[in-house]
Amino acid sequence: MSIHNNGTELTIGLFGFGVVGASLYQVLAHTPSLNARIKKVCIKHADKERAAPAALFTTDADALLNDADINVIVELTSDSDVAHHIISTALRKGKAVVTAGKSVIAKHLPEFIALQQQYGTPLLYEAACCASIPVIRNLEEYYDNDLLHSVSGIVNGSTNYILTRMAEAKLSFGDALAEAQQAGFAEADPSLDILGVDAANKLTILLTHAYGALTATSQLVYTGITDLHEADSLYAREKGYEIKLVAHAGKLPDGRIAAFVLPQFVGEGSRLKGVKNEYNGVEIESSLADRQFFYGKGAGGFPTASAVLSDLSALRYNYRYEYKKLQRGEPTALTHDLYFHVCISFRSLLHVRHEQFARIDEWVSKDQRCHISGIIHCSKLVSSDWWKQNGTSLILYPQAIQHGFVETAKKAEINELSLV
Amino acid sequence: MSIHNNGTELTIGLFGFGVVGASLYQVLAHTPSLNARIKKVCIKHADKERAAPAALFTTDADALLNDADINVIVELTSDSDVAHHIISTALRKGKAVVTAGKSVIAKHLPEFIALQQQYGTPLLYEAACCASIPVIRNLEEYYDNDLLHSVSGIVNGSTNYILTRMAEAKLSFGDALAEAQQAGFAEADPSLDILGVDAANKLTILLTHAYGALTATSQLVYTGITDLHEADSLYAREKGYEIKLVAHAGKLPDGRIAAFVLPQFVGEGSRLKGVKNEYNGVEIESSLADRQFFYGKGAGGFPTASAVLSDLSALRYNYRYEYKKLQRGEPTALTHDLYFHVCISFRSLLHVRHEQFARIDEWVSKDQRCHISGIIHCSKLVSSDWWKQNGTSLILYPQAIQHGFVETAKKAEINELSLV
Repeated sequence: MSIHNNGTELTIGLFGFGVVGASLYQVLAHTPSLNARIKKVCIKHADKERAAPAALFTTDADALLNDADINVIVELTSDSDVAHHIISTALRKGKAVVTAGKSVIAKHLPEFIALQQQYGTPLLYEAACCASIPVIRNLEEYYDNDLLHSVSGIVNGSTNYILTRMAEAKLSFGDALAEAQQAGFAEADPSLDILGVDAANKLTILLTHAYGALTATSQLVYTGITDLHEADSLYAREKGYEIKLVAHAGKLPDGRIAAFVLPQFVGEGSRLKGVKNEYNGVEIESSLADRQFFYGKGAGGFPTASAVLSDLSALRYNYRYEYKKLQRGEPTALTHDLYFHVCISFRSLLHVRHEQFARIDEWVSKDQRCHISGIIHCSKLVSSDWWKQNGTSLILYPQAIQHGFVETAKKAEINELSLV
Repeated sequence: MSIHNNGTELTIGLFGFGVVGASLYQVLAHTPSLNARIKKVCIKHADKERAAPAALFTTDADALLNDADINVIVELTSDSDVAHHIISTALRKGKAVVTAGKSVIAKHLPEFIALQQQYGTPLLYEAACCASIPVIRNLEEYYDNDLLHSVSGIVNGSTNYILTRMAEAKLSFGDALAEAQQAGFAEADPSLDILGVDAANKLTILLTHAYGALTATSQLVYTGITDLHEADSLYAREKGYEIKLVAHAGKLPDGRIAAFVLPQFVGEGSRLKGVKNEYNGVEIESSLADRQFFYGKGAGGFPTASAVLSDLSALRYNYRYEYKKLQRGEPTALTHDLYFHVCISFRSLLHVRHEQFARIDEWVSKDQRCHISGIIHCSKLVSSDWWKQNGTSLILYPQAIQHGFVETAKKAEINELSLV
């Protein structure tokens, strides 16, 4: 369905009426100028009390999907299988779709791209990545693949809140997590966030729009923050760093793309250092614009509703993602052929396969925590997981993901194993 | 002319081949995927040597404007009268136009909006404001008027470079300016920048897309940085601030819009504090997204070319500014009915009309410089210019432009003149 001119009203079928859905409802009700009306809301539990007229609600998904009057489906459910059904059905029925679902997009993007092409209907999902920060649209519009050096982001507010509290209040991971849950910045079941899955899902989406790479989240090197120790924060601070969970996609000097979500020491050289608490931030380096930085709230009802609104507004002029970078022949493949400059933090040497290092530069043992710094090949991390088990954690040094790939690799080859 | 589908080639007539024009030429030549070709370049001086085939160039503007094959005019001249002629003629001839000209847009926006509507042709000018930072498009797309609290930006790289050097290297204004000129961050004739005109022009443009206000730059309260003294930097630092030239547009609690470009003490509460040297930064507060921040290079060949490129790319899907906030009946008028919390810095009391203060809180005299802090009504600044003459300067306190308007005003009414 084509929603051509500015005069056309968007008639919305909304799935989900949680924090984001209710915020969206409230905003649309108060700003008639948006010319968008929610006709029906599909919910799971009919008996909950809600801040909207009862007649608006139904538990019958088909009442929305089969209503020819509804030209836009807004999908805000929390279940990615349900979301997949809603989105793919709506696209097939020629309805435009806006969603905030990260995992459903990360999981099914190739299928959704095909459906959009086949049925000529747009699917927009700005809210799925960093909520209020318009990063997907900017990557889609502003950076040609050839010119984009890297995208580095703090894309998960829960883990950033926890890391900020660990650094500033010297809390343990567990205490900081509990505080984040109490403050509403972490879910009751925080595992998707703290294990890095949510950030990796977002990176999967960013990779498509940044580099035309279609990849499964499971193919990425990623980890979370569960094994970071308060001694690591201290160690970072002594070196002038803070630890952040950073999602990174970048171009190696030979043009191949590397992508990973790993804890990272962030220093003054990066604007990510100033991204604190529940905020998100994305730093983009390109040959034209040089370094750019986007900052804002990456979660929550209104910030997410704000991104959904902007997608609704874009539908008015028939905006759709062009996936330009995907259309140029072969999709971009990711490489694991690079060296990382890392710090491994651990309690017991039993759990550390230090022979996998190409080079070890520093070995610091203090109280009950040890830190080994050195160079390791990314493929070693792909083929094993000792580095994210048994209380062992890995933290990247900043030079590893800035400009030092080649140099690092060369040095490592020369010195390989010489210091181990 | 409508440039409908992705396959259509953009055939460009380019005016101007300075740093930005040459950068654009280079990028287009190296990225065929953009599917945009420069057919002809109109220049002023035929005899200069240029890094492109001679056959590309002409000094005859009509050769471009009358070429039916050319569907896009890119306007990068430095003369705003010439630019006005090119843009208005091209729009009348049904050609899409992309420009980087700030002053031509600030001066003629109402006319250009009418021409776009009359001839159904788009005019895009993302490069005219903060170059590589996509602030116009984001204001246009992401924030409904009702929901946007404020836009605060460092939008001029020259003055920001000078202020950074004054603060960090304790240089005088004159020395910092000379250094900026040597480093290529200030023009040989820097007056438009250092007098605040350039920033005010950008604010004029932002006001249209942020609030649907059409105003002349001359109607804004603005000043530059020429009279800032090294003692002011010191005074700022003692209070934990840095001085920045900030362009601000914000909504008062009663819904009216205030806008001004003034030097401001910026503290830890604002991300603008970290915007250094030639960089630009824009902070946006809205009820939905809360606080967002955009950061990047605001001038220079490639950053500006990057914004021009993104406009070219947007033309492919027939993107045009909708000026939504203007279309809702009455255009928004600006108000000067508010109080400012300011510091006046001066050498001689002769030049200071301190009786215009509603309240004076602090009076510090040190060496050869005095600082009076207090509250003054904006209308006093509009109706006089003692505060920006004779080595006197005015610096806003941050609370004045954050949330304190009403409170400040009330206090001032209560205490009016009581301390003077």
